[in-house]
Amino acid sequence: MKKIVIIGGCAAGPKVAAKSRRMDKDAEINLYTSSKHISYSACGLPYFIGDKVKNINNLLIRLPEDFEKENIHIHTKKTCEKILPEEKAVIVDGERVEYDELVLATGARAYMPNIKNSNLKNIFTLRFIEDGINIKRIAQVSKSVLMVGFGYIALEMLEAFLRNNLKIYVVENGKYPMSAFDIELREKLYKYITENEGKNVEFISQDTVVEFIGDDCFKGAITKRGKEIRADFCFVSTGVRPNVEIAKQAGIEIGKTGAIKTNNRMQTNIEHIWAAGDCIQKNCIITKLPVHITQGSIANKEGRVCAINLNGGDEVFDGILCSTATKFFDFTMSLTGITEKRAKSIKNIVGIEPVSVIVNKLDKASYMPDAKPITIKLIADKKSGKLLGAQGCGLGDADKRINVVTSALQKGMTVDEFLHLDLTYTPTTSGTIDPLLTASYELKKLIDE
Amino acid sequence: MKKIVIIGGCAAGPKVAAKSRRMDKDAEINLYTSSKHISYSACGLPYFIGDKVKNINNLLIRLPEDFEKENIHIHTKKTCEKILPEEKAVIVDGERVEYDELVLATGARAYMPNIKNSNLKNIFTLRFIEDGINIKRIAQVSKSVLMVGFGYIALEMLEAFLRNNLKIYVVENGKYPMSAFDIELREKLYKYITENEGKNVEFISQDTVVEFIGDDCFKGAITKRGKEIRADFCFVSTGVRPNVEIAKQAGIEIGKTGAIKTNNRMQTNIEHIWAAGDCIQKNCIITKLPVHITQGSIANKEGRVCAINLNGGDEVFDGILCSTATKFFDFTMSLTGITEKRAKSIKNIVGIEPVSVIVNKLDKASYMPDAKPITIKLIADKKSGKLLGAQGCGLGDADKRINVVTSALQKGMTVDEFLHLDLTYTPTTSGTIDPLLTASYELKKLIDE
Repeated sequence: MKKIVIIGGCAAGPKVAAKSRRMDKDAEINLYTSSKHISYSACGLPYFIGDKVKNINNLLIRLPEDFEKENIHIHTKKTCEKILPEEKAVIVDGERVEYDELVLATGARAYMPNIKNSNLKNIFTLRFIEDGINIKRIAQVSKSVLMVGFGYIALEMLEAFLRNNLKIYVVENGKYPMSAFDIELREKLYKYITENEGKNVEFISQDTVVEFIGDDCFKGAITKRGKEIRADFCFVSTGVRPNVEIAKQAGIEIGKTGAIKTNNRMQTNIEHIWAAGDCIQKNCIITKLPVHITQGSIANKEGRVCAINLNGGDEVFDGILCSTATKFFDFTMSLTGITEKRAKSIKNIVGIEPVSVIVNKLDKASYMPDAKPITIKLIADKKSGKLLGAQGCGLGDADKRINVVTSALQKGMTVDEFLHLDLTYTPTTSGTIDPLLTASYELKKLIDE
Repeated sequence: MKKIVIIGGCAAGPKVAAKSRRMDKDAEINLYTSSKHISYSACGLPYFIGDKVKNINNLLIRLPEDFEKENIHIHTKKTCEKILPEEKAVIVDGERVEYDELVLATGARAYMPNIKNSNLKNIFTLRFIEDGINIKRIAQVSKSVLMVGFGYIALEMLEAFLRNNLKIYVVENGKYPMSAFDIELREKLYKYITENEGKNVEFISQDTVVEFIGDDCFKGAITKRGKEIRADFCFVSTGVRPNVEIAKQAGIEIGKTGAIKTNNRMQTNIEHIWAAGDCIQKNCIITKLPVHITQGSIANKEGRVCAINLNGGDEVFDGILCSTATKFFDFTMSLTGITEKRAKSIKNIVGIEPVSVIVNKLDKASYMPDAKPITIKLIADKKSGKLLGAQGCGLGDADKRINVVTSALQKGMTVDEFLHLDLTYTPTTSGTIDPLLTASYELKKLIDE
């Protein structure tokens, strides 16, 4: 009877457990997590805080008892302290647990930058269910919040805080929020926020918090430029870091990105130790360069592949396209592949010559009264003619267009091929020339120049 | 100075004219159409009739004077009677017009089945701007309508008639409407219509109209099964037929589908005669079989390719994926590639072994309060593992998923490749496992069996 031990309980870990059970009826499966909850949607927390999702239990996809029914043993609030690869064992809260196959799904944690007094109370990051409950509680009784950093989670939290009628101060390094996108789309988002929520949201751009103020509790912050901001509590979202400490200590190879390195079968460099999810490094299909990106959807795929291989099957996962999406009220932002900024920064390393176009168009036929403006940016390599990435934003349906490019990127489609795409057409979903095709016609001109 | 003569003024014709002008500043370009209007969106007519689009002028994308500004001469209400290929001339309303290059963009017309008394007044089909105006006028003063046939246009007209508060009788050959789709999706649509509009819409299924009643004006109809239906006017939408009469007479090759045959550069078998749009036969990329499908989006692409080649460029159009979409209030239906029914009917001809799955899932994360149910059907070839087609329907965002498959089909993607797709993810646009991926996991099981 095979002993499978899984460390981590958010997305990849439970996936490995469930899929392993389907592949091996007899295996002894134990999952350990330091958290109180397992199999929860961390991505749903902003919607719980914003009260669109009323009950926190809705974010718990599967409960420990659901797993127990399948004879999968869930151990919450148990911390794995050490891996002993030569003994094929782990130490969990002082106790020795043996494994035949070990899966590290230790995830990532919110990164707290080096700011003076960051140990004050009422300074929050968001990762666990408990974080969500605590933030919702304070948001409901507060009048103002300081947000430090502005990426995906911050954008969704901005909506959540606005739904709690808070006055919001945002301190951001860049000129515009959302540095994952190219500048043109970041500017559109910034304009949308300031034009629609300007009186409730104050941006302190191109600045950094250097010190938090308060005795026991957070009361405010001072920025590098000397600005003092007062607020009732603080939300920090300045990226994440993979949880790799026990892996490192055990001699498991860490990649350039700081995350665990696996092969495309989810194996680490140590036999019988596998890894999946937010703690591992991924391969970008476009650039073939390593990246560290955290996404529940990717963790799920890696968990699946890991379970198949761990249980004697054969499946490979060749990498990701860095696809992401987010939404601020009705304004959506999506991207797939690489941005122009990224393409330019690595062009000599990977041997590409990036060209790009931006198209502003309606998402439906122009005469439809509910047509909304969207912006599509397409990036391609002038040398090979291949698409490199796409970004979309706007009030209309931009997200649906970006996923069309995702398929195209997966197969290395050229712009010449893409512009013939027979996309569905009806006036309620697009004009006769879809914005994606308009963009590809423009892009072809640049490639042919 | 090259003389370009274009016959037809809806989508492909004006596209060839405009693109030719951009490629050749000096060419003499003359466009003849028997209609009163050019460059109009016929697809928008149901929304004009349903009064979502208030002004008919909004459907006129470009006016004759817009073309005249570019020195393109538009001749409306002029019928081309004959082509004289050996003289490189056409006869337009008795007048001889010479060409260097001739483009046939004669379109298609509504098909009127062989029903007794079909020449009565107040029996309408929909193709031209005038049809739209006439139907809107009568819909606004009537109480009831009989609809004969039920495809894409009919579904959109059903909404338009409901917006005019009409009682609607639908006579349809099949058990369920929309025969372009597989039965499971047709049943979902039927249920949606009957559950939501049941008291206003009466389906007379698996029956056919054999006779219209009335002296001068339509008053009702008798069906094959002997049912008599009374209504104020009648709307017939039983498909379209390509306008190929003058082409045929001139010796231009007609394909198996009854439409004009061209090569992938939009050339007919007669030198200096080109064709594009609804009058030509298309190549299905999946089956390599000829099809006749009418879509403004395809006409546009063909017009572009035709103009490029006609003006000395070099571009090919390898075919279509039969992608379509339609909407009935909030219920959307989309398809790309081939249906299971079609796949089964041609499996021996093209050497495939079709397998399919249906997935019913929410379009967003399950805990989002605005998540809506969608149905996704995926079809693949068990022999090659390649995707063959996809269909989607529901209140949620099914259409966006179908276009992801469009890209995949264009590049011959296998199910094994598709299930690793890094689709964008955020709770407001999808669950961690997108319905498309759920479907592809299921499909893989059938392929691997």
